Amino acid sequence: MREIIELKGHIIDSMILPRILDTIMDMGGDFEILELRVGKTKTDESYCKMIVEGDEKLFEELEKLGAILPKKEVKVAPAPADGVLPDGFYATTHHPTYVYINGEWKKVKHIEMDCVIVIENGEPVCKRQGLVKKGDLVVIGREGIRVEPPQRPREPSDIFGFMTSEVSAEKPVNSLIKKLAKEMKKLRDNNGFIIHVVGTAIAHTGADEALAELIRMGYCQALFTGNGFAVMDVEKQLFGTTLGMDKNTGRVYKGGYRNHLVAINEIRKAGSIKKAVEMGILKSGVLYECVKNNVPFVIAGSIRDDGPLPDTITDVMKAQDEMRKYIWEADERGGMCMIWASMLHGIATGNMLPSTIKTVIVDMNPYVVTRLLDRGTTHALGIVSDPGVVMPMLVQELKKLEKGEE
Amino acid sequence: MREIIELKGHIIDSMILPRILDTIMDMGGDFEILELRVGKTKTDESYCKMIVEGDEKLFEELEKLGAILPKKEVKVAPAPADGVLPDGFYATTHHPTYVYINGEWKKVKHIEMDCVIVIENGEPVCKRQGLVKKGDLVVIGREGIRVEPPQRPREPSDIFGFMTSEVSAEKPVNSLIKKLAKEMKKLRDNNGFIIHVVGTAIAHTGADEALAELIRMGYCQALFTGNGFAVMDVEKQLFGTTLGMDKNTGRVYKGGYRNHLVAINEIRKAGSIKKAVEMGILKSGVLYECVKNNVPFVIAGSIRDDGPLPDTITDVMKAQDEMRKYIWEADERGGMCMIWASMLHGIATGNMLPSTIKTVIVDMNPYVVTRLLDRGTTHALGIVSDPGVVMPMLVQELKKLEKGEE
Amino acid sequence: MREIIELKGHIIDSMILPRILDTIMDMGGDFEILELRVGKTKTDESYCKMIVEGDEKLFEELEKLGAILPKKEVKVAPAPADGVLPDGFYATTHHPTYVYINGEWKKVKHIEMDCVIVIENGEPVCKRQGLVKKGDLVVIGREGIRVEPPQRPREPSDIFGFMTSEVSAEKPVNSLIKKLAKEMKKLRDNNGFIIHVVGTAIAHTGADEALAELIRMGYCQALFTGNGFAVMDVEKQLFGTTLGMDKNTGRVYKGGYRNHLVAINEIRKAGSIKKAVEMGILKSGVLYECVKNNVPFVIAGSIRDDGPLPDTITDVMKAQDEMRKYIWEADERGGMCMIWASMLHGIATGNMLPSTIKTVIVDMNPYVVTRLLDRGTTHALGIVSDPGVVMPMLVQELKKLEKGEE
Amino acid sequence: MREIIELKGHIIDSMILPRILDTIMDMGGDFEILELRVGKTKTDESYCKMIVEGDEKLFEELEKLGAILPKKEVKVAPAPADGVLPDGFYATTHHPTYVYINGEWKKVKHIEMDCVIVIENGEPVCKRQGLVKKGDLVVIGREGIRVEPPQRPREPSDIFGFMTSEVSAEKPVNSLIKKLAKEMKKLRDNNGFIIHVVGTAIAHTGADEALAELIRMGYCQALFTGNGFAVMDVEKQLFGTTLGMDKNTGRVYKGGYRNHLVAINEIRKAGSIKKAVEMGILKSGVLYECVKNNVPFVIAGSIRDDGPLPDTITDVMKAQDEMRKYIWEADERGGMCMIWASMLHGIATGNMLPSTIKTVIVDMNPYVVTRLLDRGTTHALGIVSDPGVVMPMLVQELKKLEKGEE
Repeated sequence: MREIIELKGHIIDSMILPRILDTIMDMGGDFEILELRVGKTKTDESYCKMIVEGDEKLFEELEKLGAILPKKEVKVAPAPADGVLPDGFYATTHHPTYVYINGEWKKVKHIEMDCVIVIENGEPVCKRQGLVKKGDLVVIGREGIRVEPPQRPREPSDIFGFMTSEVSAEKPVNSLIKKLAKEMKKLRDNNGFIIHVVGTAIAHTGADEALAELIRMGYCQALFTGNGFAVMDVEKQLFGTTLGMDKNTGRVYKGGYRNHLVAINEIRKAGSIKKAVEMGILKSGVLYECVKNNVPFVIAGSIRDDGPLPDTITDVMKAQDEMRKYIWEADERGGMCMIWASMLHGIATGNMLPSTIKTVIVDMNPYVVTRLLDRGTTHALGIVSDPGVVMPMLVQELKKLEKGEE
Repeated sequence: MREIIELKGHIIDSMILPRILDTIMDMGGDFEILELRVGKTKTDESYCKMIVEGDEKLFEELEKLGAILPKKEVKVAPAPADGVLPDGFYATTHHPTYVYINGEWKKVKHIEMDCVIVIENGEPVCKRQGLVKKGDLVVIGREGIRVEPPQRPREPSDIFGFMTSEVSAEKPVNSLIKKLAKEMKKLRDNNGFIIHVVGTAIAHTGADEALAELIRMGYCQALFTGNGFAVMDVEKQLFGTTLGMDKNTGRVYKGGYRNHLVAINEIRKAGSIKKAVEMGILKSGVLYECVKNNVPFVIAGSIRDDGPLPDTITDVMKAQDEMRKYIWEADERGGMCMIWASMLHGIATGNMLPSTIKTVIVDMNPYVVTRLLDRGTTHALGIVSDPGVVMPMLVQELKKLEKGEE
Repeated sequence: MREIIELKGHIIDSMILPRILDTIMDMGGDFEILELRVGKTKTDESYCKMIVEGDEKLFEELEKLGAILPKKEVKVAPAPADGVLPDGFYATTHHPTYVYINGEWKKVKHIEMDCVIVIENGEPVCKRQGLVKKGDLVVIGREGIRVEPPQRPREPSDIFGFMTSEVSAEKPVNSLIKKLAKEMKKLRDNNGFIIHVVGTAIAHTGADEALAELIRMGYCQALFTGNGFAVMDVEKQLFGTTLGMDKNTGRVYKGGYRNHLVAINEIRKAGSIKKAVEMGILKSGVLYECVKNNVPFVIAGSIRDDGPLPDTITDVMKAQDEMRKYIWEADERGGMCMIWASMLHGIATGNMLPSTIKTVIVDMNPYVVTRLLDRGTTHALGIVSDPGVVMPMLVQELKKLEKGEE
Repeated sequence: MREIIELKGHIIDSMILPRILDTIMDMGGDFEILELRVGKTKTDESYCKMIVEGDEKLFEELEKLGAILPKKEVKVAPAPADGVLPDGFYATTHHPTYVYINGEWKKVKHIEMDCVIVIENGEPVCKRQGLVKKGDLVVIGREGIRVEPPQRPREPSDIFGFMTSEVSAEKPVNSLIKKLAKEMKKLRDNNGFIIHVVGTAIAHTGADEALAELIRMGYCQALFTGNGFAVMDVEKQLFGTTLGMDKNTGRVYKGGYRNHLVAINEIRKAGSIKKAVEMGILKSGVLYECVKNNVPFVIAGSIRDDGPLPDTITDVMKAQDEMRKYIWEADERGGMCMIWASMLHGIATGNMLPSTIKTVIVDMNPYVVTRLLDRGTTHALGIVSDPGVVMPMLVQELKKLEKGEE
C-alpha cells in the first residue's frame, strides 16, 4: 500500500512525528516527506505531509498514532455469533476516536482500549467483546477512523505530567499533596466526578477514617473496591480490628481472624450493607458513609475472597460493567480517578479509563504506578508513597483550603 | 472458665508449649502447670498437664494450638438461612481436625482454613460459608473439637522448612532446584498429585516451554491459572508474541496488543480450548499439552480480564469450588502444590490448601512468598527468585535424574 | 564434652529453652533434663538444669543463647600482629556480656556484634578486628563468658515488639506514629539520646524540613548520613533543587544536575559545612540546624559519591569509628536510633548497635526493615511506609503533644 | 543571547530535535527554524538550522543535547585551590566530547559524567573534582565544546536497546540469555574487555561457581566487588558457608557467622588474597581464579563492612580511581560492563562509565535496573531476573556455543 498521510498539531514535541517515523522504520515501511512546516513559536501548530509505503498493519498503527488518512467511509461486518468478532475487527485505543459514517465524522461513545466499535442506529459505540451480539455491525479494517492522541499541553499543569514515565519515590511528595488538594477542590467546586479505587491497605493503615471524611466532604462520587476492603471496613466498626489486627497497636489478636468471618455473617444476616446501615448494625466507616451520602460503591469479587458479602459481585464481567457506568459519568462530568493501594482493582479500572480522565495513583509499589501511568494518559500523577499516610495528609490540606488557610 | 488441658508430642521444639503460654498471657488468662515431662532424647515425646483459667475465646484458641480439652460431645446449630451461619460458629484452621461425635473422634473431611464444619449424615465436612444451606447443622463453640498442629519433623527434609519464616533471595537457589527435582521425581514415581499454579510471567519469560515439558513428563496433574496466562499461551502459538511482545527479542510490536484480542476471538470461534485443539487451531503450548495429556485446568476470572476465553470461569466462587476438587485429590493422593509467579491465584490457592500438602512457591516478590509461607504449613519451600528461569532449570535437573545422571 | 548447664528467667515464652533444645538437636548434641521448674504466673521466673553432651561449638552457641555454664576464669591469647586475631577468638553478640576475670563477672564495655573482647587493664572491652594491636589480650574459647539475651518484657510496650519478625505494610501506621511521638517525648524529657540515620529520600520528599524541626525541638542528638543527602541539603538551600529536581513540582530541570556539583564546590570553597554556616553561605536546612544547635553529624563516604564534601569521611572504617562514639553515648544515656530511608547507612548503624538501644526503622522497602529487625533487638519498631510522609506527620504529633493537645 | 545552531544526523528518530525544542520551551527560550531537511530514507541523515534565543544556561544545555554552535576557542580558568573549581566550570556528560583548542577539535580523554575538563599540555582530560590541583586549567562556560549524543542505530542489535526505559520482569529472559551469550563470545573473540560487577547474592545463590567458570573461559577481564562478596567467597572455600548459611541446604548454622570472621582472619594472617592463594590456603573460588588467571579485581570498602580484608580499599575515592583504570581499558579495547546483583557497586560503576561501553544489568530489583539504564547509554540491556540463576544459564549457553551446538 502507498498512501499520503497528514499530521497536524504540536506533532514534534508531543512526539507524534518522531513516533510515526519510528513506527514506519520498525514495521519495515518507507516514507518520503512532502511538506514539513514547524510551528515557529510555542503555540504555533506544525504540519507534515508524507507518502508512506507499507502494509495494512502499518497504516492501522499510524492511524492510532494520529495520522490522518484520506477520508473514506468506515467498513463494518456483522458479528458471526454472540461474543464472537468478525475477522479484521478494529481494536480500539483509549483516545478520543471518530468514525466516518455517512459522510460525517462521528465521535465514538464510551471509548475504552482493547474493545471494538459497534454501529448502533448509525452511532458508533465502544463495546467489550463479551457484549457483542450476533449480527451487531462491528467496525473492521482501518479506513474511516480517526484517533486524537493527547498533545503536550502548552501550559502544563504543575503536577499532572504528559505521558510521564518517570516513576520514583524520589519526588517532593509533601508539596505534591498540597497541589493535588487544590486540583481536587477545583474539580469538586465545578461539579466534577471523583472515583476512588481502594485496596485493603487503606483499612489496615487507618486511612479509612480519612476516606470516610473525603466522602463526607464531597470528594468522592463513586467507590470501587474488593470484598477484602469491604469486609475489613465492617469488621473494624464491629470489632476494632482488620483481619484480627488491632487498629491501635497493630498487634494481631489470637483468634482474631474469626472477627472477619463474623463481620461477613452479620451483613449476610442483614441482607446487604445498606440494610445493615438501616437496621443500625453498621454505624460508621467508609461503607456507612457511602450509604448515608448516596455515594455508589462497586465491590468486585476476586478468587481470593472469603464469604463474600452479599453486595460483592462475584461475576467479574458483571462487576466490570457496573464500574463502567460510573467511569462514563466521570468522563461526561469531567472527572478524576484516584487509585489507592489497589493493584488488582486499580489496574482493572485503569484498563477501562479513557485517556481524558485525570488519573492519580498512590502506591508503595512502583510497578503498579508504572503500569497505570504507561497507558499514555493526558493528565496523570503517580506518587510512589504510602497511601495510608498520604490520604490523611491530603484531608488535612483540603481542610486548610476550605478554611482558606492556604 | 477453668479447665485442665493436656499437651502431647514434641511440644517444646515444635513451639506448641511456648505458644500456649504466650497465648494465655496475651489473652489475660492464668495457668498452673501440674505436670511437665520433657522427652529426654530427640525422639521422646513430651507431656504437659496444666490448669488454665480464662474465657471461652481463650480456650477456643488453645484448642487450635493443639491443647486437648476434656472430651465432650460436639455442639451444632442449624443455619438460619442459605449462606448464613448460626451465631457462635466454629471457624476452622487448615490443620487436621477431629470432631467428637456420638462418642467417637471423626476426622473432618476437606479441611480448609476460615470455613465451618457441617455434620452431614453423622460425618463432619468442612464447607465454605456460601455453600451452607438453611438448616445445615453447623458446629458451634469449641467443645468436642481436636486440632493436630504440625510438629517439627524429627528427620527434617533437606529443603522443606518447618514453619520457616525466613524469606530471602539470599539462598543457594541452584542447590535447592536440584533437591526439589528429586522430591518431585519421588512424588511422581509414587503416583502423587502435583498442582501447578502459574501467572503470566511464565508466558512472558519463555518458561511456558518448560511447563509444557513438565506436563509431558508427568509432573503436572492439574493446572490453575487466570485468563491472562491462558490467552497469552494461545497468542504465543498463533503469533509468537505475548501481549504483542516478541517471544525472542522482547521487543513490543507496534499494534501487537491486537494479537491478544485475536487469540481470544479464535478460541471463541472454536467454542473452547479443547475444541480448538481438536480442530487443529491450537497445535502446541501449555493448554494444548493439558488437553493432549488429560491434565485438567481451571482458568479463574479476574476483574482485569480481557475477553475472556470461553473456558474462563467468570464467577469467582464457582472457580474456587472447581479448584477445590483438585486440591482434595492432591490431599488424598499425597500432593504438592507449586506456585509460580502468581500473586492472585497463588494466594487464592494457598487459602484453600490443608497444612498437610507440600507447598513450593517461586516468586521474585518476597511479599508473595512470605504471605504463602506464613500459613504454618508443615512442608513449605519458598524460593525468592525468577520463576521464568527456575522452571527451565528444574526441567533440566529432572531430565538428568531420569537419565540417571545425578 | 559433657556439662551441666542452667537457664534462668522467662525461659519458655522468651523462647530461650525452645531454642536451646533446638540448637542441641541441630548441632548433633544430646541432653537430659535434670530439673525444670516453670513459673506458675506471668511474673514468676522459670528454671532449668540439664546435662548436655556435644562439642565445643555447641557449648559456645548455647552460651550465646543464655545458658549458664560453670564459672571458670576466662581465657585469653595475644594478637599475633596488628589487626590479626589469635586462633579460637570469641566472636561477640550484641547482647550485654560478662567476662569472669579474677574471680569476678565484669561487664564488657561497648558491646557490639561480630567483634572481639580485649582485656585492657583488667577490664573487658569490645573491639573491631581492625583496631586490635599486636600483643593485645583477646578472649578465646567459651569459658568464663556469660551473655544475657533479651527477655520478653512482662509489660510490653504498645509499639516496640519483642523480636518481632512480622514486617508488613499492613499496619495501623497512623496510630503507630501517635504512639511513637509519646515515646520520643518521654525520652527527650529524660535527657535521652536520639540518633537519626537518614538517606537521600528525606531530601527529595521534602521531609528535610521536618528533620530540621526535629533538631530545633531537641529530638535529635546526633545525625548519621551519607555524602548524597548532605550535598542535597546544601543544594536545596542554594538552588531549591535536589539533584536538579524542583522541590515544589518534582520536575527535573534541564541541566539541573550541575546544581549538585556547584553545591559541593561552594562548601569546598568555604572549607567545611560549619565554616559555610559561619560565613553566611549556608542559611538554612538540616546541616545548618545541626551546626546552630550543636548537634554532631557524621557523613560517611560511599563508592557512589560525587565530590565529596570536605566533611565526608572517605575512609569507611574511620567513619564507622566516628559513628561508634555517638552509639556509645546513646547506650549510656538511654537511647533510641531512628533509621529513615537509608539502606546503606541504616544497616551499617544497625550492625553496631547493642541490643539494648531502642530501634525504629521507617522504610518503603520491607527488605531493609526485616534486615534491621532480624537482629534480635529487645525494643524494635519497624514501619513499612514512606519516611518522607511519616516524618512530617511525626512532627505534627510532637507539636500537639507539646501543646498538650493530646 | 541569540545564536544560530545546527543539528545533524538522525535527529528526529534519535529524539535529538524533539528534545532540543522541548528544552527551548521548558527553559523559556524562543526559536525560529531556518532550514529543516529530513532524511527521506532510513539511512539518510537529517539537518536542521535554527535561530535560538535564550540565556547562557539554555545554550549550555542545547550543546549537551548535540546542538552545534559556532566554533569558538574554549575558555579555561585556573582552579583556585586543590579540589576547588573555578566558578562557571563546565560539568561533563558521559558522551564523547570534543574541545576546540588552538583551532582544532580535540577529543576529551577518559570522559565521565559530572566531572570537569582540564587542559593538560594542550590536551583535554576529564577529571573528578577531587583530583583537580590548584592552578589546573579547568574548562568554563560552554563555548568551544561539542558533545556527540548517541544516535539510534540503523541496524539495531537484537538485545541492546537504544535508551530503552522499559524495565520489566515481563521479558523473554530465556531467549535474551542465548543472545547475550553470542554477544559475549563475539566480544571475547575480538579481544574485548568485559568487566563484571558482583554483589553478595552471587555467593549466596551458588552462582559463584558460574563466575569462576566465566573467568576460566576468558569472559572476565576485571572484577569489581565489595568486601562482603570477597569474604563470602573465601568463607565458602574454607567452610562451605556464606555468612554461616550452608551452601547446599540454605540452612543457617548455629554460630555460623563466626565462619565469616575466621575467613577474614585467615586472609589477614596470610597478608593478602594473592598470598593466601600462593600459600595454598585459598584453593578455589572466584578470587582464586582471578589470581590464577591474572584477572585484576577491585574490592571497594563500604560503611557496612566487617574486617575488612587486607585487599579491601577502605578509602572510597581511592577505590573509585582504581576502578576507573579498568573502565578506561574497557573503553579503549571495546568493552562491556556486566552488573550482577550489586546496587551499591553497580550504581557506582554506572556513574563512571562512558556512554559508549555496552552495559548489561541483571538484578531482581527493577529500581536498580532502571537507575542504571536511565543514563542514556547507547547499548544497554536490563534484565529483571535472578542473577543467581541467570549467570549459570549463561555459562551453559556459552559452553554450547563453544562446542558449536548452537
